[in-house]
Amino acid sequence: MALIDGNRIAETIVAELKAEVAALPGRKPCLALVRVGDDPASISYVRKKEKTAAEIGVTGRVILPPVTLSQSELETLIDGLNADPAVDGILVQSPLPPPQRTSGLFRRVSPNKDVDGFHTVNLGKLAQDDDSGFVSCTPAGIMELLSRSSVDLAGKHVVVLGRSLIVGKPVALLALQKRAGANGTVTVCHSGTRDLPAITRQADVLIAAIGRPEFVTGDMVKPGAVVIDVGINRVADASKKAGYRLTGDVHFPSVEPKAALITPVPGGVGPMTVAMLMRNTVKAHALAHGRH
Amino acid sequence: MALIDGNRIAETIVAELKAEVAALPGRKPCLALVRVGDDPASISYVRKKEKTAAEIGVTGRVILPPVTLSQSELETLIDGLNADPAVDGILVQSPLPPPQRTSGLFRRVSPNKDVDGFHTVNLGKLAQDDDSGFVSCTPAGIMELLSRSSVDLAGKHVVVLGRSLIVGKPVALLALQKRAGANGTVTVCHSGTRDLPAITRQADVLIAAIGRPEFVTGDMVKPGAVVIDVGINRVADASKKAGYRLTGDVHFPSVEPKAALITPVPGGVGPMTVAMLMRNTVKAHALAHGRH
Repeated sequence: MALIDGNRIAETIVAELKAEVAALPGRKPCLALVRVGDDPASISYVRKKEKTAAEIGVTGRVILPPVTLSQSELETLIDGLNADPAVDGILVQSPLPPPQRTSGLFRRVSPNKDVDGFHTVNLGKLAQDDDSGFVSCTPAGIMELLSRSSVDLAGKHVVVLGRSLIVGKPVALLALQKRAGANGTVTVCHSGTRDLPAITRQADVLIAAIGRPEFVTGDMVKPGAVVIDVGINRVADASKKAGYRLTGDVHFPSVEPKAALITPVPGGVGPMTVAMLMRNTVKAHALAHGRH
Repeated sequence: MALIDGNRIAETIVAELKAEVAALPGRKPCLALVRVGDDPASISYVRKKEKTAAEIGVTGRVILPPVTLSQSELETLIDGLNADPAVDGILVQSPLPPPQRTSGLFRRVSPNKDVDGFHTVNLGKLAQDDDSGFVSCTPAGIMELLSRSSVDLAGKHVVVLGRSLIVGKPVALLALQKRAGANGTVTVCHSGTRDLPAITRQADVLIAAIGRPEFVTGDMVKPGAVVIDVGINRVADASKKAGYRLTGDVHFPSVEPKAALITPVPGGVGPMTVAMLMRNTVKAHALAHGRH
């Protein structure tokens, strides 16, 4: 087996984007990051995005509205960013504190600035094999990890565990697309799947995105499979200073010896998400300037 | 085995819609049918839709622009129908004669009148489990055939042969939805699938939509499976007056004895498509009147 090093691949992409942005004439791409409230994870995610943007030469505009703002005020804020020609991409950091609801915002951000790829139009374009839209960052990152690890899905059986809107379904649609690197036969499993191990054992490529710590064990994996672990779960661990450790949806100790390639957690899919957000922002800038 | 009688189920739905439309106050639902050119199949399809609309009490407005009209003239025509408050649903009959291109029209018809369910927004809504949109007619008809035959997909393995935008992908997304009747584990196969029979033999429900006459043979089907045949292929047959016979994607003689339930061709999925178009039109009317 060998590890797929998400940190290294993400760094390569960041370096590529940096060179691309440096060569751009005029105004550089600009990403608006909207964070409401002070959820510690949100603070840390936004900071990481800000930092990577700066590294690439993308202008980060961090917007921290008061936590008291109403849903309609938040919508007005987004409308303003939609209309602002100096803003290419808009990201509203999840989770929003109650009573804000993220779901309605999927369609509030203009599809042309929806660098998170959550808008109905962008998911529809993905389903229609139309690459003029934005693919959400985690699924795009998974495809990039695979292609940069020379894993061609053509003729392969790809089994996706989980059918979420932001990972399971879009990555299934990507793997199914009729294009180089994709063209997989795709099975989507979930909590209601019967005899799951019999299905996962057929996977040439297994993508675990169900949010259950160490759910996929060695007996569920075919020898030689490629295993992508999308999960990031906190598991109580008294031996750690923080009181928890991070674990994926894959039980690494039993799966790793059987897999041909496997992503670690952390350091696998995670770092790719930010890199793909930056790629989407650069693409949004190109679209706004008629270069795509 | 037993036949799933698409004609009978479609008739039931038509009768239900007729009662529903009769009870509607004011202006009845109106479906605009745009046909360009005189492709014999198009003529026959539009006539069937007209006839069913009349039976239900839906106003059919058949529009036959000259075959010489340009792409932009066709777009102007659609824009006019989009803006017309007396029109609830718009269907542009495929295929269009060259140089018309159907693909761009997917997004020209207003999503609110897109009773064919081909618009990017409507496919996106389907992927997002948002039932405020329109599901394309053939996939919707397949789900209706299954539910009216008491086939619950929960816990079942649904194998879809074909990944087209109008059948394979949307029916896969429908079968996967987290809702009553659906909740299936879904595999999508296609021309690039390796060892296809090994996968189709796992299907509790097999949906064949690949457009290859009699492609699915008995050895590819598990005993007791439910088989839905979406194909309508013309095969040369000198013994027939027309010089051809219609056949599905399923080799009926060898599959029928193994299947618990099977749709015939013709008389299976086909009749459902028109019934679902009418249901979408009635839904569009309800949406326009704030009743949905």
